[in-house]
Amino acid sequence: MKVAKFGGSSLCSSTQVEKCANIIKNDSEIKAVVVSAPGKRFEKDTKVTDLLIALYVNHTADLKTDNALQAIMDRYDDIITGLDIDRTLLDTFEATIKKYLTEIKDRDRLLDALKSCGEDFNAQLMSAYLNKLGINAVYLSPRDAGIFVTDESSNAALLEESYAHLAKLKERDEVIIIPGFFGESKNGHIVTFPRGGSDITGAIVARGLLADIYENYTDQSYIFSGHPGKIENPLPITEVTYREMRELSYAGFGIFHDEALQPLYEVEIPVMIKNTNAPEIEGTKIVPKRAVTPEKPVIGISCDEGFTSISVRHYLMNREIGYTRRLLRVFEKYGVNIEHIPSGIDNLSVIVRSNQFDGNNKKENILKEIEERMNPDWIGIEENLALLVIVGEGMERHIGVANKATKALADHNINIRMMNQGSSEISMVFAVRMEDDDLALSSVYNEYFK
Amino acid sequence: MKVAKFGGSSLCSSTQVEKCANIIKNDSEIKAVVVSAPGKRFEKDTKVTDLLIALYVNHTADLKTDNALQAIMDRYDDIITGLDIDRTLLDTFEATIKKYLTEIKDRDRLLDALKSCGEDFNAQLMSAYLNKLGINAVYLSPRDAGIFVTDESSNAALLEESYAHLAKLKERDEVIIIPGFFGESKNGHIVTFPRGGSDITGAIVARGLLADIYENYTDQSYIFSGHPGKIENPLPITEVTYREMRELSYAGFGIFHDEALQPLYEVEIPVMIKNTNAPEIEGTKIVPKRAVTPEKPVIGISCDEGFTSISVRHYLMNREIGYTRRLLRVFEKYGVNIEHIPSGIDNLSVIVRSNQFDGNNKKENILKEIEERMNPDWIGIEENLALLVIVGEGMERHIGVANKATKALADHNINIRMMNQGSSEISMVFAVRMEDDDLALSSVYNEYFK
Repeated sequence: MKVAKFGGSSLCSSTQVEKCANIIKNDSEIKAVVVSAPGKRFEKDTKVTDLLIALYVNHTADLKTDNALQAIMDRYDDIITGLDIDRTLLDTFEATIKKYLTEIKDRDRLLDALKSCGEDFNAQLMSAYLNKLGINAVYLSPRDAGIFVTDESSNAALLEESYAHLAKLKERDEVIIIPGFFGESKNGHIVTFPRGGSDITGAIVARGLLADIYENYTDQSYIFSGHPGKIENPLPITEVTYREMRELSYAGFGIFHDEALQPLYEVEIPVMIKNTNAPEIEGTKIVPKRAVTPEKPVIGISCDEGFTSISVRHYLMNREIGYTRRLLRVFEKYGVNIEHIPSGIDNLSVIVRSNQFDGNNKKENILKEIEERMNPDWIGIEENLALLVIVGEGMERHIGVANKATKALADHNINIRMMNQGSSEISMVFAVRMEDDDLALSSVYNEYFK
Repeated sequence: MKVAKFGGSSLCSSTQVEKCANIIKNDSEIKAVVVSAPGKRFEKDTKVTDLLIALYVNHTADLKTDNALQAIMDRYDDIITGLDIDRTLLDTFEATIKKYLTEIKDRDRLLDALKSCGEDFNAQLMSAYLNKLGINAVYLSPRDAGIFVTDESSNAALLEESYAHLAKLKERDEVIIIPGFFGESKNGHIVTFPRGGSDITGAIVARGLLADIYENYTDQSYIFSGHPGKIENPLPITEVTYREMRELSYAGFGIFHDEALQPLYEVEIPVMIKNTNAPEIEGTKIVPKRAVTPEKPVIGISCDEGFTSISVRHYLMNREIGYTRRLLRVFEKYGVNIEHIPSGIDNLSVIVRSNQFDGNNKKENILKEIEERMNPDWIGIEENLALLVIVGEGMERHIGVANKATKALADHNINIRMMNQGSSEISMVFAVRMEDDDLALSSVYNEYFK
């Protein structure tokens, strides 16, 4: 039994929706389907979710909302016309939006409700179209499906009881169609997930139903060993572990959100990366464990920009028990998440995503507080760093893996600003200057894969 | 104006004491001298301090103390006879020891008092011999010199006021001879320093007198780029910074204790490493800053054994603000000092000196507490690691430094268990298995220096 999730590009037009419906029709194993909102049809197109946000902004600014509403309705009109299904759905959709605009006075609640429409309407029309094709499908809102969440606007966290509700859906005869991206709070509010859009719902539903496989449909057939936009013809990955996937998706592998795997990871449900436009391709399988090929210790290389390093020197630092902990406490106080803490004997660097410093002079306050509390001999800050991450379950016991990377970087005259690899780890991290990042990625990629 | 410190091997016999006295006589810049206890004269010899400890152990076990006392007195008799100075000093020494044995009832206090004799007697006889040579020298006990310390036995920490007392010694006409290794508490107890023996006193006196140079005399002319016992003909270092010296001395460079530099570091007094047996050799100079030769980014390589790595995996670890800090809190609770914390995305390793786990099931308790508090997906422990540390002020902006090390290790089939280098750092750390450590050191040394 499978749960399938279709992304925005798979549902951007009637042609794309037809492809998804055919995939569902041709695979009786698919028990539940999670859908995204209509995505972009062409590069300069606007996603329906962004139109909904524009509608919200205009409304709350007391500006005219006609244009935005019209653009949203046009998108659904196109799809419904193309699919030739019941046009009264359009009236329902418009009435829903207008009802939200009229009745919801709390701005944050209104934003969540409007944002949910993109996925919600798509689920309704998908269900209608499947029924037209003769498939016994049913649309279930998150409330009807039992997806209950905490009540903080735009920051939903799943309530554990939801899994028990979802488990009951297995007993139903229909193919179940659920909109992604939001749940309902116990106070009856629509609340969206903070990150990861429909991916998180897909994973939750797959876990609730204890699916054998979770299929994630996008416009890509594979996850690749290197970013396709940066590496020419990168090698497709056929099998990758959750841990490897997490390391790769963390730093620049955008195929889905790195947190979305968590519900599946815990119960070890494998994930298939599938392409709506070429469903016959096997795709990449994400699994708890895989056989490691000794001669291929590395599975992929990613590179992500926008990191900052704060370095502290303090003579005899490492004789002071608790120095590092107290230093990290300063970052924690300002809610700053830490990526890596490479260290020498009397110095250490704290590597963070630069956007963690956004707002309220966080960086300045942290530097000031380190100065005051930690009695450093010297503090330095280095911005505009990129992290190159080399990933592979086979790396740990393999000799010479690090040398390939350092050779490639040295051969291309790239300075290593930071280097990090622990025992029993499946990744190796190098920081380089942002200006070097594309060259660093391609040269290291070529060293391993060419 | 200089302060000179002479180590145990420089004061092990009358011949050696004569060499030291001649150095003092021939350099009118030397204002104060700090002396160690008599060291070994030959490989199987016993240091006087160890004889004093044996005396203490026999005494407190109610065993006969004659042998140990005789052995101690024989050492000083030899030296005093060789120097042909006032033999009543021997009576004073023996009386002092007997007085301590009789009068000091607290065992810890007795140990400190007995241990102090080695240095104390050497200072007295050095002063007598210098006067015989026509030099106006004076022995000052730590109390007379103003070296006051905290009152915990065998764990003296300097009281800051001591520097002001020492500063006054500049006004005296004599060459001042001070025994190393101990100070006096405000309660009138003799208290020894926990580590570093006479080195720490030497540095304290140099700082108190604000010497222009601190000369540290041992039986070596230089600090070398690699450990002379492990590397054949290692390159001598002529100039090294405090920071570099600290990184090198931390991991396997035994010439003096890595904490002893601290008092000098703060006021930037340069240190000369000098050889008592060849004082004409310039030696290694330890300075606050040095000119870096671009083509020689690395100044030295050290390797130290006996490290353990505890690794923790926790899915989405790096989204949990404070996870690392809370993990470090567990180690801190058990008083365990941390060396390095290399990390991946969802995992990190904590590297500690294995001896930090000595006693009371610390390791087991820490593992248990991590298991209970940190909800890890997996914990691993790897023992018997060695840390290879590559040091140099010139490394930071130099391209290809890491590659030389990784190449040497890969060429010699050595697995890298951990790798660590931060921004703005002057060292790079590789962990290897202890069985690989000599090969790792020599192969990496050869890559940089041969």
